[in-house]
Amino acid sequence: MDLLVVGSIGFDSIETPHGKTEKQLGGTAVFCSVAASYFTKVGMVATVGSDFPEHHVDFLKSKNVDLTGLTKLDGETFHWGARYHHNMNRRDTLFTHLNVFEQFSPEIPQAYRDTPFLFLGNIAPSLQMHVLDQMTAPKIVALDTMNFWIEGTPDDLAKVLRKTKVLLVNDEEAAQLTGEGNQLKAAKAINKMGPEIVIIKKGEHGAAMIHDNEYFYAPAFPLDQVSDPTGAGDTFAGGFMGYLAKASRIDKGTLRRAMVFGSAMASFAVENFSVERLRHLVSDEIDQRFDAFHEMVSFERE
Amino acid sequence: MDLLVVGSIGFDSIETPHGKTEKQLGGTAVFCSVAASYFTKVGMVATVGSDFPEHHVDFLKSKNVDLTGLTKLDGETFHWGARYHHNMNRRDTLFTHLNVFEQFSPEIPQAYRDTPFLFLGNIAPSLQMHVLDQMTAPKIVALDTMNFWIEGTPDDLAKVLRKTKVLLVNDEEAAQLTGEGNQLKAAKAINKMGPEIVIIKKGEHGAAMIHDNEYFYAPAFPLDQVSDPTGAGDTFAGGFMGYLAKASRIDKGTLRRAMVFGSAMASFAVENFSVERLRHLVSDEIDQRFDAFHEMVSFERE
Repeated sequence: MDLLVVGSIGFDSIETPHGKTEKQLGGTAVFCSVAASYFTKVGMVATVGSDFPEHHVDFLKSKNVDLTGLTKLDGETFHWGARYHHNMNRRDTLFTHLNVFEQFSPEIPQAYRDTPFLFLGNIAPSLQMHVLDQMTAPKIVALDTMNFWIEGTPDDLAKVLRKTKVLLVNDEEAAQLTGEGNQLKAAKAINKMGPEIVIIKKGEHGAAMIHDNEYFYAPAFPLDQVSDPTGAGDTFAGGFMGYLAKASRIDKGTLRRAMVFGSAMASFAVENFSVERLRHLVSDEIDQRFDAFHEMVSFERE
Repeated sequence: MDLLVVGSIGFDSIETPHGKTEKQLGGTAVFCSVAASYFTKVGMVATVGSDFPEHHVDFLKSKNVDLTGLTKLDGETFHWGARYHHNMNRRDTLFTHLNVFEQFSPEIPQAYRDTPFLFLGNIAPSLQMHVLDQMTAPKIVALDTMNFWIEGTPDDLAKVLRKTKVLLVNDEEAAQLTGEGNQLKAAKAINKMGPEIVIIKKGEHGAAMIHDNEYFYAPAFPLDQVSDPTGAGDTFAGGFMGYLAKASRIDKGTLRRAMVFGSAMASFAVENFSVERLRHLVSDEIDQRFDAFHEMVSFERE
């Protein structure tokens, strides 16, 4: 296996100006591993409740996602509800039922421990560290986190950051983590904490990567309709890490292509609710969108 | 003359986290014409009060800005005060003293009337139309407007839009003008109003151009410090129109380069207060920043 994804699986109940869903498949591990599955062999470590429908398991298997690390616990699956505002830039969380996710303690199956690429989704830094402690020598560790952990468990977060190569955060999280509102200064401060590669997610505007004193920007792909932004960041991470794992290297050109494939996958994800748009993608569609990204930013000196 | 700029001249009193200024040179016509002066022969139509210092006139002359259209009226010059919030994305207007700008009625000198490229800064649409009525046959008319006119004088705005080739607005203005929150749909609606080329300014995130069913994105240039965002949009317009006027054509490649030169000039403007950073630019700096923009978005298929 090339890529291991550790994170949540859950049901999402989402309301946007374009529709409403009840208990659809969601969670970091799902969005990320499904996106990555288009590029590489991916496995996941996650937990679901006894109410988790077999057809979701079948779907993940159909994407060749290795589910050795999926555990089923007695109880209900994580369930999250949110309503997006008219412009989709903001949302209100309506409820968060952690359910069995509260007991999540990621145990890494023996067969996964030498996986070279690792994505640590947004969970408690102590759990992220618990994963790292079980891995033999991951080549690239990418990590997502959020304000809750930056504020609440800064010491645990600092420890895991020291072992992280790629940090994915949004503007506000970068500022909160470093006390620096300027993204270049924040990235430099993050470099000193461990991560060499800083990806700043900018939502509807795209994402920037700061690495080796270079700044690369991948604008978000313009769509006629964004149906549901849920999972965009995790899908981005899946495309990014999936492509890196496939390439099995992290030179400048590969990293930039990974940013674009991540952005391309995220642009598909938001076209529909849940993982609907990611279910039946074909590689031609992904390649065409990659080319469309290229066209969107291309210009030449005269 | 290749480019005519019509708009405000005033004093700006600005406070940002990086400093505070009192009555520094500002206004659309200033930022726009100074930026354009690095590319082409530009003239302005604007009005100042009797208190307008001669050294500002000398500065504009030193940039080869034609001032035949600059009128001095009895009274005080337009004066605007604003304070930016910590993250620079929002500002509070502290005061707006229109002064002589209230009497501004743009009379176009005979020698300006056959100018091929025209930028109509954000003034009342009826005044923008008054300018158009005096021009013989401008090749490219670009227009800026704002929520105040979109709400207040929609019929006047509709008339002038029918004669406009390039509309520059921000996300919110595009949505307000068209009732469409989606930028692609808003741009299509704007096309039907007249402008073939729609530029959506996204502030700290950059700018997008929608033209001929193509979407081009120029991200904002990352800076270690943004000292004062005032005038960024007008400076962008100056670089954009200045480059177009110099090229004297509007094919796809030229328009895209104009977007990048506009973004480059704006990135200089915000590095310091007022027009300080634009005073002594040399063309090598502009070319280097153009190349840096190229590098910032470059990636190749493997």
